[in-house]
Amino acid sequence: MREKAFLAELLPRLAQGADVTIGPGDDCALVELGGVGLLLAVDQVIAGTHFDATATPQQAGRKLLCRNLSDIAAMGGTPLHALVAVAVGSPDAIWLRRFMDGIAAAAGEWGISVVGGDLSTLPGNGLAAALTITGRVDPAHACRRSGAALGDRLLATGCFGNAVLSGHHLGFVPRLREGTFLAAGGWARAMIDVSDGLLMDAAALARASGLALTMDPDRIPLRAGADLAAAMGDGEDYELLFAVSPGRVAALQAAWPFPDTPCTAIGEFVAGSPGEIHSSAAGGLSVRFGAGWDHALGNKPGTNPALAFNLNG
Amino acid sequence: MREKAFLAELLPRLAQGADVTIGPGDDCALVELGGVGLLLAVDQVIAGTHFDATATPQQAGRKLLCRNLSDIAAMGGTPLHALVAVAVGSPDAIWLRRFMDGIAAAAGEWGISVVGGDLSTLPGNGLAAALTITGRVDPAHACRRSGAALGDRLLATGCFGNAVLSGHHLGFVPRLREGTFLAAGGWARAMIDVSDGLLMDAAALARASGLALTMDPDRIPLRAGADLAAAMGDGEDYELLFAVSPGRVAALQAAWPFPDTPCTAIGEFVAGSPGEIHSSAAGGLSVRFGAGWDHALGNKPGTNPALAFNLNG
Repeated sequence: MREKAFLAELLPRLAQGADVTIGPGDDCALVELGGVGLLLAVDQVIAGTHFDATATPQQAGRKLLCRNLSDIAAMGGTPLHALVAVAVGSPDAIWLRRFMDGIAAAAGEWGISVVGGDLSTLPGNGLAAALTITGRVDPAHACRRSGAALGDRLLATGCFGNAVLSGHHLGFVPRLREGTFLAAGGWARAMIDVSDGLLMDAAALARASGLALTMDPDRIPLRAGADLAAAMGDGEDYELLFAVSPGRVAALQAAWPFPDTPCTAIGEFVAGSPGEIHSSAAGGLSVRFGAGWDHALGNKPGTNPALAFNLNG
Repeated sequence: MREKAFLAELLPRLAQGADVTIGPGDDCALVELGGVGLLLAVDQVIAGTHFDATATPQQAGRKLLCRNLSDIAAMGGTPLHALVAVAVGSPDAIWLRRFMDGIAAAAGEWGISVVGGDLSTLPGNGLAAALTITGRVDPAHACRRSGAALGDRLLATGCFGNAVLSGHHLGFVPRLREGTFLAAGGWARAMIDVSDGLLMDAAALARASGLALTMDPDRIPLRAGADLAAAMGDGEDYELLFAVSPGRVAALQAAWPFPDTPCTAIGEFVAGSPGEIHSSAAGGLSVRFGAGWDHALGNKPGTNPALAFNLNG
């Protein structure tokens, strides 16, 4: 069973109220309350899947919050509140306190109020922690996945690949500043954060926009220790991937106020089967995904089917 | 480790923003957004703890939503949105679809939009599902736990005990109508929903209000099949327990517009050690709790320490 396929099929069938501007299926939902745009999203970390025994409990807690902040960033929003639910098989008060300390420290960095929590025991072992984040955004500037237009360029913050082995997946800084800048200035017409892998999330952005994508393998920024296959498939980068009108790319790169954050044009939205990705390299392959690679349901780095796809052919 | 003690100690230490009117520790948090009072809460169901194999997946999903609706009811609010995170050891698409159908059907009953979800795999077996609920309430009418005054009467909706064996814990109707009525009319000065058991939740209400309570064992409404010990200790009743000014009890009972919902005076807030409960019966015992009975961390019906306490002495 594929997580994204399951939820992608199920959630949009749920009835949505008139106050819901963006329902399930984007990085966050957007609802309007008292004239304000309220962003809502939930994400989890599972021991053994999203972190292992080499991570400190503080790092695991921080990652849980920051995964959610990356979703707020992808909408161009500002985070407000968090609620945390933990289900744990063998409660260890010291571990849990440190885990919550990791959440609290990161919440403090971004001025987020942790307003609620629940703690339950799982039969057996294991730990699952879910965090719901709220945020606010001007509804006129919220970035959906579906706004890319034919000819738009695909841009990305940061670099890709080797996020787990390098420790990036535990220490990344969610791209909140960059997301707010891109949304408020109207630079990004569509945006997504890269958690499942560059190839998969690029395909999701293109599919939501009803377009195909051409990506240039020579332009993908590589993290130290990553080759192109890792950059395309590893995931856990928590970078922003976004569509910019071709006439504005140079102006955006000139205006870009974050010298420590690369901002790179890596592809172009083209006509074609929605979500299909072509390589612009000579002899490059094309790839097409159904409902996407299923990152959360047990695939590990190194077993990602995207690794079988090499944009260089 | 006791869940409530752990969170009760931890969550209030977290920094809260100026927009947070009620922080962690009540049935919901209350934040102000665009002049509107936004309620936020999270609760979980764990397979084997909150439901077992005799429950249908639809019932388990319904219970997850309704537990949260009971928290909204206890603040006097109206539910708006839900987000669902599921961590499951052995994904079964048919079971999960039915579980989500149970959430969706109950969401439809109350006009709630399910705006987001996440599905992850647990190593091993088991299922933990967390649901975050949002709601709205007029901040001037939101019912906290801490508002009871000396001499206030303790009232309860419905009846108590035997909630698991009778199936009530799967089929209960959250007291949203009653909660809204009690809050909007200013009848309830403090309110809580009964999930951990009448004795424990009454103690929590009294403790938050800085008072002790006298309860009258002869007036506790019993569910069919329940004796007094079960009514006091079983939990999972999802009734409302609230404080009413002594001068308004008769007027409330005359105005009570829900003929199918009993509304019964069962005690009185008195001076004493906060959270201490006395029996008004001849020879009755008194009991005092620290951080409360820990319902969620593995206690089963029949092992509740409150069962050792009989108000009749």
